[in-house]
Amino acid sequence: MPGTLPTGGRPNIVQIVMDDLGCGDLGCTGSPLIATPRMDAAAAEGLLIEQAYSAAPTCTPSRAALLTGRYAQRVGLHRVVFPEETEGLSSFERTIADVLGDVGYRCAAFGKWHLGDGPEHNPLRHGFEEFFGLPYSNDMDPLYLVDGEDPVAGEVDQTLLTKQYTDRAMDFISRQGDAPFFVHLAHTFPHIPLHVEAPFRGVSEAGTYGDTVECVDHHIGRLLDHLDGLGLRESTLVVITSDNGPWFEGSTAGLRGRKIDCYEGGVRAPLIVRWPGIVPAGARSEDVVSLLDLPVTYAALTGATMPADRPIDGIDRTAVLLGAEAPPRPPLFFCSHWDLHAVRDGRWKLHLQRIGRDRRELPQLFDLSRDPQESYDVQTLFPDVMERLLALAADFDDEIRSQKDEAIARAQTRMSPAAVGRNSPVAK
Amino acid sequence: MPGTLPTGGRPNIVQIVMDDLGCGDLGCTGSPLIATPRMDAAAAEGLLIEQAYSAAPTCTPSRAALLTGRYAQRVGLHRVVFPEETEGLSSFERTIADVLGDVGYRCAAFGKWHLGDGPEHNPLRHGFEEFFGLPYSNDMDPLYLVDGEDPVAGEVDQTLLTKQYTDRAMDFISRQGDAPFFVHLAHTFPHIPLHVEAPFRGVSEAGTYGDTVECVDHHIGRLLDHLDGLGLRESTLVVITSDNGPWFEGSTAGLRGRKIDCYEGGVRAPLIVRWPGIVPAGARSEDVVSLLDLPVTYAALTGATMPADRPIDGIDRTAVLLGAEAPPRPPLFFCSHWDLHAVRDGRWKLHLQRIGRDRRELPQLFDLSRDPQESYDVQTLFPDVMERLLALAADFDDEIRSQKDEAIARAQTRMSPAAVGRNSPVAK
Repeated sequence: MPGTLPTGGRPNIVQIVMDDLGCGDLGCTGSPLIATPRMDAAAAEGLLIEQAYSAAPTCTPSRAALLTGRYAQRVGLHRVVFPEETEGLSSFERTIADVLGDVGYRCAAFGKWHLGDGPEHNPLRHGFEEFFGLPYSNDMDPLYLVDGEDPVAGEVDQTLLTKQYTDRAMDFISRQGDAPFFVHLAHTFPHIPLHVEAPFRGVSEAGTYGDTVECVDHHIGRLLDHLDGLGLRESTLVVITSDNGPWFEGSTAGLRGRKIDCYEGGVRAPLIVRWPGIVPAGARSEDVVSLLDLPVTYAALTGATMPADRPIDGIDRTAVLLGAEAPPRPPLFFCSHWDLHAVRDGRWKLHLQRIGRDRRELPQLFDLSRDPQESYDVQTLFPDVMERLLALAADFDDEIRSQKDEAIARAQTRMSPAAVGRNSPVAK
Repeated sequence: MPGTLPTGGRPNIVQIVMDDLGCGDLGCTGSPLIATPRMDAAAAEGLLIEQAYSAAPTCTPSRAALLTGRYAQRVGLHRVVFPEETEGLSSFERTIADVLGDVGYRCAAFGKWHLGDGPEHNPLRHGFEEFFGLPYSNDMDPLYLVDGEDPVAGEVDQTLLTKQYTDRAMDFISRQGDAPFFVHLAHTFPHIPLHVEAPFRGVSEAGTYGDTVECVDHHIGRLLDHLDGLGLRESTLVVITSDNGPWFEGSTAGLRGRKIDCYEGGVRAPLIVRWPGIVPAGARSEDVVSLLDLPVTYAALTGATMPADRPIDGIDRTAVLLGAEAPPRPPLFFCSHWDLHAVRDGRWKLHLQRIGRDRRELPQLFDLSRDPQESYDVQTLFPDVMERLLALAADFDDEIRSQKDEAIARAQTRMSPAAVGRNSPVAK
C-alpha cells in the first residue's frame, strides 16, 4: 500500500543517473520534442519529484555528493577532475555502496565514474564489487573503458555505451539471487560529444541530442522489463535522475541558467521514483529533494547506517518518496569550486555569486514560489528573510572553508603502489 | 476601421522605448508580479506583437538601428559607447527624425540617447528639435542631463527621470498644434542602477525592478491620457517597446539567454502598437518584426522617404501593424560587436557564435516554431536548411565586414569645434 514500507524486506535499489540531462527533457517533464515513453511510464507508475536538485552544477562535484551524501567541498572534489590529475574520491569517504554493503547489499557501478582515475579511486575501492564504464567524461582524453580495475584495450565505440552499461547492469542483477542489490547506473549521454546507437539515429524530433535521450530511454525500458521479468518489480526501488542541468543543448524548462550556473537551470534535475505498491502511482511532489538526500534515504530504507564521524549533508527523504507528508527541507547550498553561489531555503533563494566576472546586482533574493525563473530580486520587500539567509550563507561558507585544506589534501593523497595492488590505468 | 489607413491625415508617432525591459515583464506578456495596467490597456486597445526583436542585444547598437533602420555595424556603433569615447552617430546617418522632418514632422527626443556624447552626436544634430535626457546609460560617469545641446548643471535625481522625461514629452506634444509630430521617448529604467520615484517605492511584488517598471507604466498612462485629452487619440500611433532583453533582473518569459546574448532572451522585446480605429483592438500578431523595421514603417505610414543611397535593413511592416496579412520577414541577423552570432529566417534560427570563450557545439540550428527556448540543435534533420542559413550568414558577414573600416571611421570622426558651435558637454 502506498505510504507503507514493506515489513522486513529491504528493497533493491537501482539508481540511474543521466549526464547533463535537462529537467525539461522528458515527456513527463514537458518536452514536446523528445519521446521518453519508458521514463514517462516509470513516472506514471511512481512519483515525479518536481523540485529535485543536483548537489552541484558540474559532473564531479555532483557525483561526489550523490554517492557520499556530503557536499563535494567536504569531499575535496569541488571541481571537475581531468585525466592525469591526482584528485579523486579518497579512502576516507564512505560511499552509499560502502554503507549498503555493511547491511548485506551487493553493489555495482556501471557507466561514468568521474571521481578520479587513480587506482585508489576505482569504484571497487569504494564499496562496489563490479564496475564497467568510463573513468570520466566522454569528452576527455585518453578515452578508455574500465572493467573492474582493468582498462579495456581498444578504441571505445561511444555509440554502444548506453547499451553496454545497461547489459552489464542487467547481467549483474540476474546474478544476485536473493541478495539485495544496489546498482549505480550512470549513463554517459546526453553529455557531449553526442554518439548515437544505430537504431536511434535520426529518430528524435529534437535532433541528435534527442536521439541519445531516446536511446537511453529505450535501454532504461529494457532494464525495467528485466526487473519485472525477474519478479523484482515490487521489491526494487528505481530512481532516475541527472547530475546537473543541460549544457549547450537540452531544456531547462524555461528556468534561468544552464550547467555550471547555480541558477535553477543549472542545478534542477528530473527525479523519478518507481517502487510499485510502495510509492504511490502517478504522484507528483513539490517537496524539495536534493540528490544529497538519496544515499541517506537509501540508508534509512534499508536499515543501513551513514557514517557518524563526519558531516552528512543529505537528509532522510523517505517521507517524500513514499508520498507522505514531509517537513520542508533544511537549507540547500550551491557552490562553484569553493565559492558559495546560492542558498535555497523553502521558497527563497539567495544568490551571492554567479559564473562570470560581472558581480553587479549581487546579492539577489528570489521568491521561487512566485518567481521560479529567478527574475526579480525582492530583498527590499523581505529584509528579514534577506538577513536570515545572509547569515545562513556566512555560516556555511565559514564551515566549508575551514575544511578546505584538509579536504583537498585527502582528495589529492595517492596510496602507495604496494597498497593499491597490481592494476593501474592505461596511458598514464 | 481596422486595416485601413486614414485618408490624407498622417499619424503623430510616439515611440516609447524602455531600457533592458524583459519581454516577460508586462502583465500583458505574462508577468505575474509586475502590474502594468496602462501598457496592458494599450495592448488591449491595440496590437501586441509577440515575436518582436531588438536589432541588437545591447543599448547603443540597438538604438543606432532603431533610429536609422540600419544594422548598428553599418552605423559604426557596433558596441556600447562610454563617456569620453569619440564614437557616436555620424553626420552621414539619417535618423527617422531626419526622414520625418522632411515631410513636415516636428521631432523631439526625450530620455536616454546613448549614441555618442560629442556635440555632433547630439539629437539636435540628428533631426530632433528638442532633447532632454541622459547622453548615455544611467550607470555611467559623469552623469548629467542635457537640455537641447546644453548640459544641465547640478546632480541628477534619478528617481525623477521617468517623470521628467514624460513631462517634457507631454509639453512638447501640447505645443504642436496641427503639425504632425514624432516623439522618441527613451526611458532610463529598468536599466541599473534602479531608482524609484517616491510614490512607487515598494509598490511592486517584483521588488525594486518592478517598482521602476510600474512607475514607467504610470507615466506612460499619463502620456496616453494627455494624448486623449488633446483629442489626439485616433491620430496618434503609439509604439511601446524595449531596447534589448533583461540583464541581471527581469523576465525573458523562459527564453534562453539575457542581455548581451543573441539567444532569444537577449533580443526579444515586447512590442505594443496602439492606434485606435486603425490598429485592431485586442489583436495579437505572431509575425516577426524587428525594431529595425520601425523607421521604415513610420516612413511608409507618413509618405516619407528613407535614404536610397545606402543599405537600409528594416522593411515596411505596415501590414503587420494594421493586422493585415503580412509576408514572412526576410532574414534577421544578430551581431555582437563585429561577430555575427545568429540568423533568424522564418521558423529557423542559426547560432554561429555565443558570448563567452566556449565555442563548443557551434553552429546550432534551432526550430523556433517547436523549440522557442533554443534547446535542440536540429541540423542533422534539416541539412538543407542548415546549408541555406550558413550561406546567408556568410554573405551577411562578408557584407558587414566589407563596410567595417568605413563605418568605424565615420562613427569616430569628430567635427571641428567651429563647425559644431558653442556648446559642449560638461566635464569632458
